[in-house]
Amino acid sequence: MREVGVWFVGARGSVATTATLGAAAVKAGAAPPQGCVTESPDFPVGLVSIADLVFGGHDITECPLRKRAEQLSRAGVVPAGLPGLLAQDLDAADAEIRRGHVPGDGTQEAAAARLAGDIAGFRDRHGLARVVVVNVSSTEPPAAPRPEFRRLADLEARLAAGDDVLPASSLYAYAAFRAGCGYVEFTPSTGPALPALAELAELRAVPYAGRDGKTGETLIKSALAPMFAQRSLRVRSWSGLNLLGGGDGATLADPAARSSKTLSKERAVAGILGEPVEGETHIDYVEDLGEWKTAWDHVTFEGFLRVRMSLQFTWQGCDSALAAPLVLDLARLVARAHERGRYGVLADLAFFFKDPLGTDEHALAAQYARLRAFAADLAGDPS
Amino acid sequence: MREVGVWFVGARGSVATTATLGAAAVKAGAAPPQGCVTESPDFPVGLVSIADLVFGGHDITECPLRKRAEQLSRAGVVPAGLPGLLAQDLDAADAEIRRGHVPGDGTQEAAAARLAGDIAGFRDRHGLARVVVVNVSSTEPPAAPRPEFRRLADLEARLAAGDDVLPASSLYAYAAFRAGCGYVEFTPSTGPALPALAELAELRAVPYAGRDGKTGETLIKSALAPMFAQRSLRVRSWSGLNLLGGGDGATLADPAARSSKTLSKERAVAGILGEPVEGETHIDYVEDLGEWKTAWDHVTFEGFLRVRMSLQFTWQGCDSALAAPLVLDLARLVARAHERGRYGVLADLAFFFKDPLGTDEHALAAQYARLRAFAADLAGDPS
Amino acid sequence: MREVGVWFVGARGSVATTATLGAAAVKAGAAPPQGCVTESPDFPVGLVSIADLVFGGHDITECPLRKRAEQLSRAGVVPAGLPGLLAQDLDAADAEIRRGHVPGDGTQEAAAARLAGDIAGFRDRHGLARVVVVNVSSTEPPAAPRPEFRRLADLEARLAAGDDVLPASSLYAYAAFRAGCGYVEFTPSTGPALPALAELAELRAVPYAGRDGKTGETLIKSALAPMFAQRSLRVRSWSGLNLLGGGDGATLADPAARSSKTLSKERAVAGILGEPVEGETHIDYVEDLGEWKTAWDHVTFEGFLRVRMSLQFTWQGCDSALAAPLVLDLARLVARAHERGRYGVLADLAFFFKDPLGTDEHALAAQYARLRAFAADLAGDPS
Amino acid sequence: MREVGVWFVGARGSVATTATLGAAAVKAGAAPPQGCVTESPDFPVGLVSIADLVFGGHDITECPLRKRAEQLSRAGVVPAGLPGLLAQDLDAADAEIRRGHVPGDGTQEAAAARLAGDIAGFRDRHGLARVVVVNVSSTEPPAAPRPEFRRLADLEARLAAGDDVLPASSLYAYAAFRAGCGYVEFTPSTGPALPALAELAELRAVPYAGRDGKTGETLIKSALAPMFAQRSLRVRSWSGLNLLGGGDGATLADPAARSSKTLSKERAVAGILGEPVEGETHIDYVEDLGEWKTAWDHVTFEGFLRVRMSLQFTWQGCDSALAAPLVLDLARLVARAHERGRYGVLADLAFFFKDPLGTDEHALAAQYARLRAFAADLAGDPS
Ligand SMILES: NC(=O)c1ccc[n+]([C@@H]2O[C@H](COP(=O)([O-])OP(=O)(O)OC[C@H]3O[C@@H](n4cnc5c(N)ncnc54)[C@H](O)[C@@H]3O)[C@@H](O)[C@H]2O)c1
Ligand SMILES: NC(=O)c1ccc[n+]([C@@H]2O[C@H](COP(=O)([O-])OP(=O)(O)OC[C@H]3O[C@@H](n4cnc5c(N)ncnc54)[C@H](O)[C@@H]3O)[C@@H](O)[C@H]2O)c1
Ligand SMILES: NC(=O)c1ccc[n+]([C@@H]2O[C@H](COP(=O)([O-])OP(=O)(O)OC[C@H]3O[C@@H](n4cnc5c(N)ncnc54)[C@H](O)[C@@H]3O)[C@@H](O)[C@H]2O)c1
Ligand SMILES: NC(=O)c1ccc[n+]([C@@H]2O[C@H](COP(=O)([O-])OP(=O)(O)OC[C@H]3O[C@@H](n4cnc5c(N)ncnc54)[C@H](O)[C@@H]3O)[C@@H](O)[C@H]2O)c1
Ligand code: NA
Ligand code: NA
Repeated sequence: MREVGVWFVGARGSVATTATLGAAAVKAGAAPPQGCVTESPDFPVGLVSIADLVFGGHDITECPLRKRAEQLSRAGVVPAGLPGLLAQDLDAADAEIRRGHVPGDGTQEAAAARLAGDIAGFRDRHGLARVVVVNVSSTEPPAAPRPEFRRLADLEARLAAGDDVLPASSLYAYAAFRAGCGYVEFTPSTGPALPALAELAELRAVPYAGRDGKTGETLIKSALAPMFAQRSLRVRSWSGLNLLGGGDGATLADPAARSSKTLSKERAVAGILGEPVEGETHIDYVEDLGEWKTAWDHVTFEGFLRVRMSLQFTWQGCDSALAAPLVLDLARLVARAHERGRYGVLADLAFFFKDPLGTDEHALAAQYARLRAFAADLAGDPS
Repeated sequence: MREVGVWFVGARGSVATTATLGAAAVKAGAAPPQGCVTESPDFPVGLVSIADLVFGGHDITECPLRKRAEQLSRAGVVPAGLPGLLAQDLDAADAEIRRGHVPGDGTQEAAAARLAGDIAGFRDRHGLARVVVVNVSSTEPPAAPRPEFRRLADLEARLAAGDDVLPASSLYAYAAFRAGCGYVEFTPSTGPALPALAELAELRAVPYAGRDGKTGETLIKSALAPMFAQRSLRVRSWSGLNLLGGGDGATLADPAARSSKTLSKERAVAGILGEPVEGETHIDYVEDLGEWKTAWDHVTFEGFLRVRMSLQFTWQGCDSALAAPLVLDLARLVARAHERGRYGVLADLAFFFKDPLGTDEHALAAQYARLRAFAADLAGDPS
Repeated sequence: MREVGVWFVGARGSVATTATLGAAAVKAGAAPPQGCVTESPDFPVGLVSIADLVFGGHDITECPLRKRAEQLSRAGVVPAGLPGLLAQDLDAADAEIRRGHVPGDGTQEAAAARLAGDIAGFRDRHGLARVVVVNVSSTEPPAAPRPEFRRLADLEARLAAGDDVLPASSLYAYAAFRAGCGYVEFTPSTGPALPALAELAELRAVPYAGRDGKTGETLIKSALAPMFAQRSLRVRSWSGLNLLGGGDGATLADPAARSSKTLSKERAVAGILGEPVEGETHIDYVEDLGEWKTAWDHVTFEGFLRVRMSLQFTWQGCDSALAAPLVLDLARLVARAHERGRYGVLADLAFFFKDPLGTDEHALAAQYARLRAFAADLAGDPS
Repeated sequence: MREVGVWFVGARGSVATTATLGAAAVKAGAAPPQGCVTESPDFPVGLVSIADLVFGGHDITECPLRKRAEQLSRAGVVPAGLPGLLAQDLDAADAEIRRGHVPGDGTQEAAAARLAGDIAGFRDRHGLARVVVVNVSSTEPPAAPRPEFRRLADLEARLAAGDDVLPASSLYAYAAFRAGCGYVEFTPSTGPALPALAELAELRAVPYAGRDGKTGETLIKSALAPMFAQRSLRVRSWSGLNLLGGGDGATLADPAARSSKTLSKERAVAGILGEPVEGETHIDYVEDLGEWKTAWDHVTFEGFLRVRMSLQFTWQGCDSALAAPLVLDLARLVARAHERGRYGVLADLAFFFKDPLGTDEHALAAQYARLRAFAADLAGDPS
């Protein structure tokens, strides 16, 4: 497979910066591709190599990638020295970052055209086979449903009339599809999860996947909840507290944005156990934690003769270090799917997401089996 | 399927008493079969119903089952009131408990004949289709290898010569096989895991499974370790401390017995991750914990760009309440396998064990898939 | 010291029932006075003996104490068998429970007279030296300040005018003071913490203490926070999640009532460290936990050369079992103080409270030292 | 107070290097004296300022301090950049490090003379008012008692006869006393804790303190155990697992050395609670943890009516960052005590130690009160 473009919405954020720097480090042989699922021997060859990914994107902040990388290095996300070593790669990606869209800056109709143009220009300049747009920008509040979200014609009529009806993430998905690109919704925002946009993806024959990268507490939940089910142990409550700093934490300090995330987080357990379970999931912004997250979960369950037992876990992770390799995996898989002519929602990528689009499968092992089958299938397809 | 006998070695222990009482409770409709894997809708019908299990066994203590059940009730393992309510069932099982073998009480050759006779008598008295012998007696120290363990002829020659060469658990397995019964090794002891005994199982066409019921810390390990592997996160250390009271705890306070258990516990993680991992697993007898166990595990792992992260969990479980339903599952599955003509080691039952005989598969989800396939297969067999 | 009355507001609640039953158990020699601070050898003699406490109170539920005690026994708060054994004592206390006040049931002025009369009647019937009123009723939302709370004359003028201006807890404190009784505010509610009521306590020369019994997470905080201060380790964040069921949990499921509790909980750490600390304290109602509480706290701190470290703890307690002996301690201490002629706020009892009235001392060891000095002083007073 | 010398036994180890570097950082204004107890406003002035400490010591490794400091920086113990910034101070201390004593390298008699000479030479070269020797070298196995440890005359007779009877730590203490220096035993080794050496300290009128710096799990224990006692909650078991890497971890991987540490660790709880408590404390070397330590403790306790509850904590600390400022505190306090004419064991410094010499007081708050009184006393002495 030839070179593939990765276009980040939120290109100067922690996840995007870590992914950009990390790809450069792997290319330079300065780090193993640890944390990259598709680099495991369980996966067939045939995906674009990490060294052949080219980066660009949209953001609304001006802070140069080099500086962001230095900040991440001080925060312990990336090794000291690496940003300096790979400054050239960071600068190259930086030169491909364009201004994102902010409400008020022209109509969404005009913005969509401009954003799509930015992406197409990137593809052309680099002679890329294809580009995958990956949304790693700040989480939005949940979007209220609107009638025009149902059909593409209605949506485009509203946009043509100069009405700004789309949440930002969906505007980017719209632009990506118009530019003929695959799309990954790595945040809990709406993105492509509107019937009108699904229609557009079909029309343009582009694949997409989402929603909300599964990197921490929910990852563990999706590994542990099936155990209770398989052992016929009845889960009685599942409560959790997530403490995190960083830009993502600051965004989630806003209750509206946070509700997107908690909704997304709470789906997994009930989905796996097949019944609603008592308990809440809290998210607290704790500035002092920097780019790190600590999550505590407490589970009560009932066994034989109704005896009550409990399980607790504490997860201490670096979110961007967990997310970045998955973002590379997703770009590679979606690019390959696109190449193989797949389009519409890629439910087989559920393994990567807290709130998988196109399926209700939340159990990690089942998702992994499905992902492997998908990858094998892509590898086997005649091109 | 007609009535099936369950013959416990260690019939007055916590696990056996809880299983006997629990089966009576399920039969009486006093409790749901929670914790019984084979009662889940994932499993086909065709197994003997819990109500059709008949109990007996060997033990070396005289304490009546009623009294043991009362003790377990005070310890919070079984609901208050239940032992009284089901006293008749406990007494019936009690009447079928025979004196176990203690070293010095005659030769092993003689003991084997007597033990096999006890089991056969039980089968005959109750007109049972078949009996499954389940070892839930105290854990033994690991047995040193001996040349005569390799071939049945050599083993029987030594026994005939009056030499007591078998560890107790293997003596019971030998007696079970001679009585034409399936056997489950629920403890970490040697049991049927000798080539000579495998030979005998083939000869008598009886099935067996083991080893060491997977009920707590190792269960969680086998659910979590695959997650690290699937996400290409490199586990760097895995340490654990198990605190437990009860009879099992008291036995494991002896370093020799404990080493059987820790060996068994440490196999899972390395088996799943495919490489040895730094870290120890401790087992402490804490009398004050009674029949309850608390285990803490600490895992360090490495992600993208070698960033270090960690996971801890605390498991607070009631071991006998976790083990008892599995013991019923195993008896039902082995009886069915026996009925269907399966014999030798049943590697497909790995799901239930810390140290599965006949396979190296330790990952819980993979074990579960295999178990379901096995059960479906048994259901489908023409009888 | 002669017999002393303990009058519970919320006499049928978990704390009151446990205290009533527990005092009877200690009297009967059925349990040691474990958890009673004033029974330790650190305390001088001279307090009324637990066997000489007589119980009564107000409540708005009709559920008999026997039945509440049975429920607590099933929930593991009190030993099985004890409620039956001590049924007579429970019935005696039950016979002394009067209907509490509910808004709308007459003016507060009339209610205060009636409530005070109930208490005085109890004292007279039993010929008690004195009665201590202890509020262990459901937590109220924080009360908005009002001008008439400042001076007794203004408050009584409003009440005389038929205006219901007091929160329920303050109405009970008002009634207690009018009846010439000492008062303990064991909940986070307002109770006696109004200048007008302080004035009344002076006038009637009665002592009082509060607020919000310190039994779990905050107890640990007040033991651990001083350690950070003494070691010059700078605490950077302190976050917590409290999971609890029971009647108290159900009350706190209401955000307004919960805010009384979280305010009270958050004072301790900042009070001890002398500066505000980042982090929130959550309280979740988890019905499944019954009368038990699990709290997890996460602390980050900075040491030499600004290195970041952390501490977590998980507390698993039975709130009523922790609270009940303290309630007995408080009744005994306040009765003695009253006897010795002390009146007004007893700041020396801060050891027992999350939000101590009359002092800002939150450090546990300092509070303990002060409590011992107070008790010694009471013992030494010529009567 | 004029300049004071700090002579480290183990001068190139983690603790000594961090203390040396940290003192230089404080002097340069590059870091606040966080973690230094004696810098808190609770302490009177009068101690030598950190800027006036001069460093030297013994070690048996050649690795230069600069290099050790760089290693500690990579391990996250000290900030990146600091070793470079303060290279001059590190080099100055390095120039004052002399070869330690290794068994076989001459008699202990000769070694003591040489070691004492090294210390005296350092004092003279720098014109220091006094020098405090602080043992922060590798932990030794516990020393078997010997008759000659009882009286100085007997000990010196054995040494004069060319018999090497002292453990290394005691040899250093002997040399320090002979050189007229105060001594701090920061490790669990024997050091000055022999009657013969106490005699020598009296004779030379030098003060000493010890044993085993209290920086992590035991620190928390000594803050929490008094809470149980004060609340009359009966502790039933206390178990712990310490995971640590680094040089100290590697030393403690040896069971003999480890037993010194666990003995020292287990004294605190029983000492505070006044009765032995069930449960063990494990120490595991986990290389992967580098200079960091994770400790988990599990406590069960009994409250009112014998209800069982539990507390767990997880401590994640950087041992050297915790120890280094205490080492500076101790040097300052011992120097001042020496100046003020105090000699023999300084039991008032128990606050700093797991196994305090000269007292059985283990409760942190009581130790702190005693330390403050001691410091006030030293300040008040006419000089
Ligand atoms: N890190 C993880 O483990 C993880 C997991 C799941 C989901 N996510 C999601 O990924 C997203 C990124 O996380 P992060 O930690 O990198 O956050 P971040 O705050 O560091 O980065 C977000 C970036 O988005 C940019 N941005 C905001 N609005 C924009 C707009 N309208 N157009 C273009 N750019 C815009 C911001 O300027 C910023 O650079 C978040 O939504 C987060 O919830 C992260
Ligand atoms: N409970 C669990 O979760 C679990 C999980 C895996 C394995 N196990 C194993 O199951 C076994 C039973 O556990 P338990 O908690 O019931 O222990 P237990 O101590 O309560 O019971 C053991 C019983 O075995 C009897 N026994 C001892 N030696 C015997 C002999 N030679 N012949 C016959 N009987 C003998 C004892 O008298 C006792 O009644 C242990 O080996 C344990 O390690 C238990
Ligand atoms: N248990 C602890 O550890 C602890 C610690 C600190 C404070 N507290 C406080 O103690 C109080 C009691 O806790 P609990 O667990 O017993 O709760 P609970 O819900 O079991 O009992 C509360 C009782 O108060 C009664 N009540 C409600 N309104 C009343 C009114 N107006 N007049 C008279 N009675 C009324 C209720 O009917 C109930 O019987 C709560 O406010 C709780 O926050 C408890
Ligand atoms: N760091 C803490 O929190 C803490 C707390 C209590 C006690 N301690 C004790 O402090 C000591 C030092 O800890 P560390 O982490 O710096 O260990 P380390 O292994 O990094 O340093 C020990 C140093 O002692 C040197 N040494 C060994 N034998 C010697 C000898 N005979 N003479 C002179 N030097 C010798 C070694 O070469 C090494 O440089 C250990 O005994 C440890 O148990 C540390
Ligand atoms: Na879905
Ligand atoms: Na106060």
